[in-house]
Amino acid sequence: VAASLINGEPQGQVTIADRSFQYGDGVFETLRVVAGRPTLWPLHLQRLQAGCDFLNIPLNVPILERELAGLLASNPANGIAKIIVSRGAGGRGYRPPEVAEPLRVLQFFPWTPEPASPPADGIEACICAHPLSQNPVLTRYKHLCRLDQVIASRELPKQFPEGIMLTDDGLVIEGTRSNIFLVTHNRLVTPSLHRAGVQGVMREYLLDRFREEGCEVDQQDITIANLLGASELFFCNSVFGVWPVRELTHSGGRVGYGMGDMTHQAIRYAQEAYREDT
Amino acid sequence: VAASLINGEPQGQVTIADRSFQYGDGVFETLRVVAGRPTLWPLHLQRLQAGCDFLNIPLNVPILERELAGLLASNPANGIAKIIVSRGAGGRGYRPPEVAEPLRVLQFFPWTPEPASPPADGIEACICAHPLSQNPVLTRYKHLCRLDQVIASRELPKQFPEGIMLTDDGLVIEGTRSNIFLVTHNRLVTPSLHRAGVQGVMREYLLDRFREEGCEVDQQDITIANLLGASELFFCNSVFGVWPVRELTHSGGRVGYGMGDMTHQAIRYAQEAYREDT
Repeated sequence: VAASLINGEPQGQVTIADRSFQYGDGVFETLRVVAGRPTLWPLHLQRLQAGCDFLNIPLNVPILERELAGLLASNPANGIAKIIVSRGAGGRGYRPPEVAEPLRVLQFFPWTPEPASPPADGIEACICAHPLSQNPVLTRYKHLCRLDQVIASRELPKQFPEGIMLTDDGLVIEGTRSNIFLVTHNRLVTPSLHRAGVQGVMREYLLDRFREEGCEVDQQDITIANLLGASELFFCNSVFGVWPVRELTHSGGRVGYGMGDMTHQAIRYAQEAYREDT
Repeated sequence: VAASLINGEPQGQVTIADRSFQYGDGVFETLRVVAGRPTLWPLHLQRLQAGCDFLNIPLNVPILERELAGLLASNPANGIAKIIVSRGAGGRGYRPPEVAEPLRVLQFFPWTPEPASPPADGIEACICAHPLSQNPVLTRYKHLCRLDQVIASRELPKQFPEGIMLTDDGLVIEGTRSNIFLVTHNRLVTPSLHRAGVQGVMREYLLDRFREEGCEVDQQDITIANLLGASELFFCNSVFGVWPVRELTHSGGRVGYGMGDMTHQAIRYAQEAYREDT
């Protein structure tokens, strides 16, 4: 059971009039907490703030940070913190009220490694049938409308810890809860998110780290052929870090991937994110 | 203030763990209540059931109908009823729990005609800048992920009771809370929803009524040029019925529309939906 705060109060209920319940009118972040510290906090906060600005939901950052610190201080040192900023209650229609009282909802979940912690030589993955919605305006924000991810996660057979999602016209975009990178012709690339997907915090962090080390990662349109022809493939998100893929099941069969320098480097970067206050 | 029932109990709060609050993992219907009766109920129920089947959320229809009848019996005779079926609480991730207890959330809002009831000769409308997300799999369901509609409604200047939404590549799809029909070259057409949009109940009802009278309505891709070149244009939804458009403001200026036989016929059909138990 999670511990939770709503606008600083230990509470776990919201009114059904809340617009996140009615319409998905809010944004969220999910962060890994290590030794009581929210990792990659500056990147999470940046995306949260961008989403609130875009939706015109006021966000009091000092209060949020104080509430988060309080939650982390009174819970186990390692876990997952989830922050939802909802526009709040108001209106029967889609149009938000002129003034709403936003909710800052914080939850803490003690760390439980995935039931089957992924093997060091990589996971098995598959390609999901459910297509990702396309909207170029929304990919920079972690908004609450996540039905695509729910549907894709439902269809994912249990033996696959993660699956790859495409647009309905066949562009390879991301995992159900992660972004992807692949090595093709000795170059590290990641799908461009100009049409669909979510700009993940771990993706941003890895792009920055590789760039700092002189390795510019290409963001480009990735086809299924690119995916199947790649030599390395990994998923990343801010909770599990980097998961190399050993084998991908697709309609035509299976394809295997190796773990080369790029994947090992990404794993090291993720470990550093969890070690230091980055 | 709305009256509400959650799984039959007079309640107005849900846990923050509810998946509709966390992910938009549910479906809804908004119905007009006339003389204590939910109008167009068979069509609403059909779409609600289709959405629940698609998401694999069990729906007990006899219990829902009994709860709805109870809510309507204890409230004013005319108003709006909203039904949300949420998957319920469970899980920290996108994947739904194996077994969840779904919520049937019913709300009743007494009838209040829009602040500025639309003039009989039609409304002024505009074209919204925010694009509709595209996902061909989702247009048949009224799911809870409605951020596109929220964003478009926010940008709609107050003098426009409704606005038209496009895909980012310029296809004309629908209003922010309604579908559209237009008359072009003396034929009644409505945008095909094979890529984006919501199959509205009033749209389905009008398609059926026109078809019964021997007027087959074309569902096709509509461009902005088609829209600006049309002779008649109207919005429809199951709460307000049919709203003819008198004038459309767009980036290039304004275009006017007439009210011909097709629009008058649609208005009559909508009135009949509110008169009889259809």
